[in-house]
Amino acid sequence: MALVKKAMTGMKDILPEEMQIREYVLEVIKKTYKSFGFIQIETPIIEHIENLSSKQGGDNEKLIFKILKRGEKLKLDNINEENDLVDSGLRYDLTLPLARYYASNMANLPSPFKAIQIGNVFRAERPQKGRFRQFVQCDIDILGEESNIAEIELINATTLALSKIFKDRRYIVRINDRKILKAMADYANFDEKDIDKVFIILDKMDKIGLEGVRLELENALFDRINIDKYLSLFSENINLSKLKDILKDYILEKDLDKFEEIIDIVKAANIPNCTIVFDPTLVRGMGYYTGTIFEISMDGFSGSIAGGGRYDKMIGKFVGKDTPACGFSIGFERIIGILFDNSYKFNLNLNKKVYLYEKDIDKDKLSEIMKKAELDRENGHIVYLAKMNKNKKFQKQQLETMGYKEFIEFYK
Amino acid sequence: MALVKKAMTGMKDILPEEMQIREYVLEVIKKTYKSFGFIQIETPIIEHIENLSSKQGGDNEKLIFKILKRGEKLKLDNINEENDLVDSGLRYDLTLPLARYYASNMANLPSPFKAIQIGNVFRAERPQKGRFRQFVQCDIDILGEESNIAEIELINATTLALSKIFKDRRYIVRINDRKILKAMADYANFDEKDIDKVFIILDKMDKIGLEGVRLELENALFDRINIDKYLSLFSENINLSKLKDILKDYILEKDLDKFEEIIDIVKAANIPNCTIVFDPTLVRGMGYYTGTIFEISMDGFSGSIAGGGRYDKMIGKFVGKDTPACGFSIGFERIIGILFDNSYKFNLNLNKKVYLYEKDIDKDKLSEIMKKAELDRENGHIVYLAKMNKNKKFQKQQLETMGYKEFIEFYK
Repeated sequence: MALVKKAMTGMKDILPEEMQIREYVLEVIKKTYKSFGFIQIETPIIEHIENLSSKQGGDNEKLIFKILKRGEKLKLDNINEENDLVDSGLRYDLTLPLARYYASNMANLPSPFKAIQIGNVFRAERPQKGRFRQFVQCDIDILGEESNIAEIELINATTLALSKIFKDRRYIVRINDRKILKAMADYANFDEKDIDKVFIILDKMDKIGLEGVRLELENALFDRINIDKYLSLFSENINLSKLKDILKDYILEKDLDKFEEIIDIVKAANIPNCTIVFDPTLVRGMGYYTGTIFEISMDGFSGSIAGGGRYDKMIGKFVGKDTPACGFSIGFERIIGILFDNSYKFNLNLNKKVYLYEKDIDKDKLSEIMKKAELDRENGHIVYLAKMNKNKKFQKQQLETMGYKEFIEFYK
Repeated sequence: MALVKKAMTGMKDILPEEMQIREYVLEVIKKTYKSFGFIQIETPIIEHIENLSSKQGGDNEKLIFKILKRGEKLKLDNINEENDLVDSGLRYDLTLPLARYYASNMANLPSPFKAIQIGNVFRAERPQKGRFRQFVQCDIDILGEESNIAEIELINATTLALSKIFKDRRYIVRINDRKILKAMADYANFDEKDIDKVFIILDKMDKIGLEGVRLELENALFDRINIDKYLSLFSENINLSKLKDILKDYILEKDLDKFEEIIDIVKAANIPNCTIVFDPTLVRGMGYYTGTIFEISMDGFSGSIAGGGRYDKMIGKFVGKDTPACGFSIGFERIIGILFDNSYKFNLNLNKKVYLYEKDIDKDKLSEIMKKAELDRENGHIVYLAKMNKNKKFQKQQLETMGYKEFIEFYK
């Protein structure tokens, strides 16, 4: 078989320039999260096929890279279906493996457990510009905390990290609660069984507007009276305190108070450039959310750059007992894309020097040069040692594109 | 299918305590390597099956996790062999992907190219204590540099990183050259075709000694005269300058001079706690090495903690033209094992505080506490915010095991 030079379809070779930005962003994120007492952990990239196919992952389960059984376990002569061939796959997110990890290791973990996870996930999506089949996710989760301090800390930590990465951009945290979504649908008399369908249409509000949503609900043959009642909840003069009154038969006041408290306390924390607003149209796709859901969007960029919510039932599927859980995922690749495409100029403040030595310089002289380099490195400089090329001018130009500005030359 | 709590066989959930050591070690290694002008890159974890099975990986090719083809490409009704089912696999090392990466991206890379690679690799080995099927490799490579400055920089950077991790341990760099190994075998009149067999036996010298090697060579039915001649080269009074004379018809003096220069210049660099010695019995298994080979062992631990060498032919297999290449791989998991098992006490110098607030504290008070926490975090403290449990003493004890020593309590 001939060797193949290009990376696999949908996979990316990360070049030094991008890597530098990635490393910088990761450093800022990790440092910020750690200052909140989050601690980093890691789960294996390979996960049981049973767990990956357990209906926790929604559409992602269609995109699993599956791993062939090995040795005697692989029986090629009796195959009925794909799953006879595989015992595992690559994780498509970090949330499901975290639930397994927590269930497996909870005796050795603090409670509440504030976890940082940064790692590659894999989805066999149809390749498209800027989207890759291997990409980094960057999550924080708080497990074992039922109070809204979990949401507050997650939002504060995430927005603080973002405000350090994008010093000159405003962003908005939009927050909602599955319980509010449910109460609104109940108030409008939608059938329990239709609720998911209603939410899928509601989710398009930011793209198609109120009238677009009305049209789609009508096309889906919902009762006009219900539709009118439902959409009245999204008119501009409806706010959280009015909803408390309108929905009082459908949601506990205490739940709405706790929800409002998140918004108030996050506002009071006063993270630079950050606004938080209640958005009753926010749905978020994943089926595992059970309570609050939130998303961050940034001025000048469509879509979201972070998202998360509460998922109090997933860990229970592993341990048999529900465990409160809430997480926030930064759209790491999205952020890198923004920083990289717009050539945000990071001044990484590196002291970069080149030591160029003449060809055939003698051993003792080279030793001396290296000792000098060592001293410079000890003092925080980056010292690139290289033999002078015949075309020294071109060599220097090339090194300048790598950020080297100071050149010291050594002759025989 | 039922959910599975434990990680896959041979895979490891990394707990916070170990993760902290891993992150610390990675930080030291990256910082040191970067000070030499190495730049970090990343290759995809999924690699073409053609590349993984190209005979560059030796025995590792038997241990590939293979990935099932997807969609229409997977034809279950006409399977003759395993490879009809797969199009890719997980990388088993970082060297082969680097060669592909360099071949594919060389137009956009500096020359020489000094690369740092840190990432997970996968080998479906039989599980055993302390060995996992997913583990981190940590490599530096210099591509496009034919002179011995490549070896010198790799050895200096690696030993400097190690001396920063293990401040109180001595380690030894053992160095040899495939060309010297070949010249010695030629001098002893071994047949070209037998050379690999001879090397496999020679490789056991540190375990079975000179007489053990003699016995195995005899058992392999090599000519006694050849064996005597060969083993005379490993007697204690043989050093590099004597070898120059003995092997003068079998290896160029220039090559031996260049080899000796590496040892001399590394010695002159005077890296703390580091010794470098010529070891004519060092073989190193991988078939792709073409010149110098080296390994580092550390006082008090058997086996090696880093290894590498020159492989001038591998990139040529991708681009059709040989490119000089030399690499050094730190045994990252080995090092973590040593640090973790021996409970090296890292003083990470973290200012860790806990803010404990009473249950049902009011919103405004909580906001105030959070602002105070924010200020502390800005000033470099780690502040863990938590609600006081009923059993406050137990809660504090648990937090103390996480390294928190200062507790500040807030009441209603």
